[in-house]
Amino acid sequence: MSGLPEVTIAGTLVADPEIKYLDSGACVANFTIAANDRRFDRDRGEWVDASATFLRCQIWRQAAEHVVESLGKGQRVLAVGALKQRSYETAEGEKRTAFELNVTELGPSLKFATATVRKAARSNNSGDADPRGSAPPAGTSAKAADEPPF
Amino acid sequence: MSGLPEVTIAGTLVADPEIKYLDSGACVANFTIAANDRRFDRDRGEWVDASATFLRCQIWRQAAEHVVESLGKGQRVLAVGALKQRSYETAEGEKRTAFELNVTELGPSLKFATATVRKAARSNNSGDADPRGSAPPAGTSAKAADEPPF
Amino acid sequence: MSGLPEVTIAGTLVADPEIKYLDSGACVANFTIAANDRRFDRDRGEWVDASATFLRCQIWRQAAEHVVESLGKGQRVLAVGALKQRSYETAEGEKRTAFELNVTELGPSLKFATATVRKAARSNNSGDADPRGSAPPAGTSAKAADEPPF
Amino acid sequence: MSGLPEVTIAGTLVADPEIKYLDSGACVANFTIAANDRRFDRDRGEWVDASATFLRCQIWRQAAEHVVESLGKGQRVLAVGALKQRSYETAEGEKRTAFELNVTELGPSLKFATATVRKAARSNNSGDADPRGSAPPAGTSAKAADEPPF
Repeated sequence: MSGLPEVTIAGTLVADPEIKYLDSGACVANFTIAANDRRFDRDRGEWVDASATFLRCQIWRQAAEHVVESLGKGQRVLAVGALKQRSYETAEGEKRTAFELNVTELGPSLKFATATVRKAARSNNSGDADPRGSAPPAGTSAKAADEPPF
Repeated sequence: MSGLPEVTIAGTLVADPEIKYLDSGACVANFTIAANDRRFDRDRGEWVDASATFLRCQIWRQAAEHVVESLGKGQRVLAVGALKQRSYETAEGEKRTAFELNVTELGPSLKFATATVRKAARSNNSGDADPRGSAPPAGTSAKAADEPPF
Repeated sequence: MSGLPEVTIAGTLVADPEIKYLDSGACVANFTIAANDRRFDRDRGEWVDASATFLRCQIWRQAAEHVVESLGKGQRVLAVGALKQRSYETAEGEKRTAFELNVTELGPSLKFATATVRKAARSNNSGDADPRGSAPPAGTSAKAADEPPF
Repeated sequence: MSGLPEVTIAGTLVADPEIKYLDSGACVANFTIAANDRRFDRDRGEWVDASATFLRCQIWRQAAEHVVESLGKGQRVLAVGALKQRSYETAEGEKRTAFELNVTELGPSLKFATATVRKAARSNNSGDADPRGSAPPAGTSAKAADEPPF
């Protein structure tokens, strides 16, 4: 545990994710997750939504393309990442800060939905110059996983 | 933060999830996630898998059915839950302890895959007797989520 | 995993925590934690601070009193809690949102410091009306903990 | 989110932490945290401990020394780290696996206790050979933290 705050969030996409391609060739997907606090209403005898927290998120590289191909408004997702603060100035020159979640892993939640999953074809140009960014091929992990020790 | 240890895990399913129906009508899905530690191998100039941790998981009720319908061996998933210790005796009468993750939310990871998501039809008999278990209808969340405050 | 985003943060207190007593008798401590992103500077051959995220926090009841008695500006702490969004209006009638961490558990980090710990005398009036808020006496936990199964 | 499962645990130390010095000069502290699941007993009208999970933990380098100097049996702590699986053979040649938490950050919980914190004098020989292990000097973080943007 070091560096930025680590966040786990489950919630609903408030809109379709949007993708942007930078001049460098890298791409980033932006989306907002709404997480609802819930409390049990004794009078009504059921769970009700209390306040909601809306968290602006971004995810980079190949996963960004998977996100825009796979997810849409109203779907429930599960995401983990690092909470990052960004400072900016308004048109009036006022200083503001915004929070954003740098998502490192994300998927549709199976709480209220089913999913058909397709392994992505690996492209060879997805930011492999950055050793921190290029994850090991899925195949490697899968192979190691084939031999559980029990 | 109180109660059992909270766990976030991303890794590969070592086998297809299995589902079990109890006499009570409840159902539970069991599966094992392999999470690989990675380190950067300077000689080879790439990330390599170091040790792996295999975590036995279970998820209950409607989500259990979604899991067996949606996920299979070799797929990468993201899961959160509570780490629970279970004590048992072997056939030889020896006492042992095992760790299990009581998964509260789970989905296929979009790191190396895309997914087609379908909202599940809500059945009316999925453990609604337990107020802690019956989550609010997805629709409620989605509606609240439609009105971001910015 | 349900409800608000869950956050784990390790960082430095930017000022001494402040406590407020409400008319109800409840109390709340407010403080801000600065978490620094770090990256390895190859030229200088050492870790350097990159951007920082400042997270406003609050903790309630007895723990609030422990925080103001124990912690001060510049100390490194570890905290977990739920990320909550608060909407408010500026004096000019402009709508804004702020993020706050509702801390559920907190302590001084032992990464760069040592600590002398004293068990608090339990007062009988710390919000015991709320069953969710009144944690079990520490003694109970300690007793169960005396019998590890291995 | 990549690599080993990430764990957040709050619970009670079942015994005093123990420290071991390796031939390399490195040191490691070992201890076990008991985390209690709790449920509300309607008949008794209070929270009761349900099952407990005992998690074996280790922490390295300077923090290990701080832990043995600061913490003792029965105290409540908050810890975060990576869940690691270790395989071993019993004297009878039987294969077993054990789980251990590689703690990255830890402190006494202020839920039921207060603490007096003292910044540790930095020694110059605590594993500085490993850039991943040597955290940035506390002073750097504290300085950055002195300038909150609001």
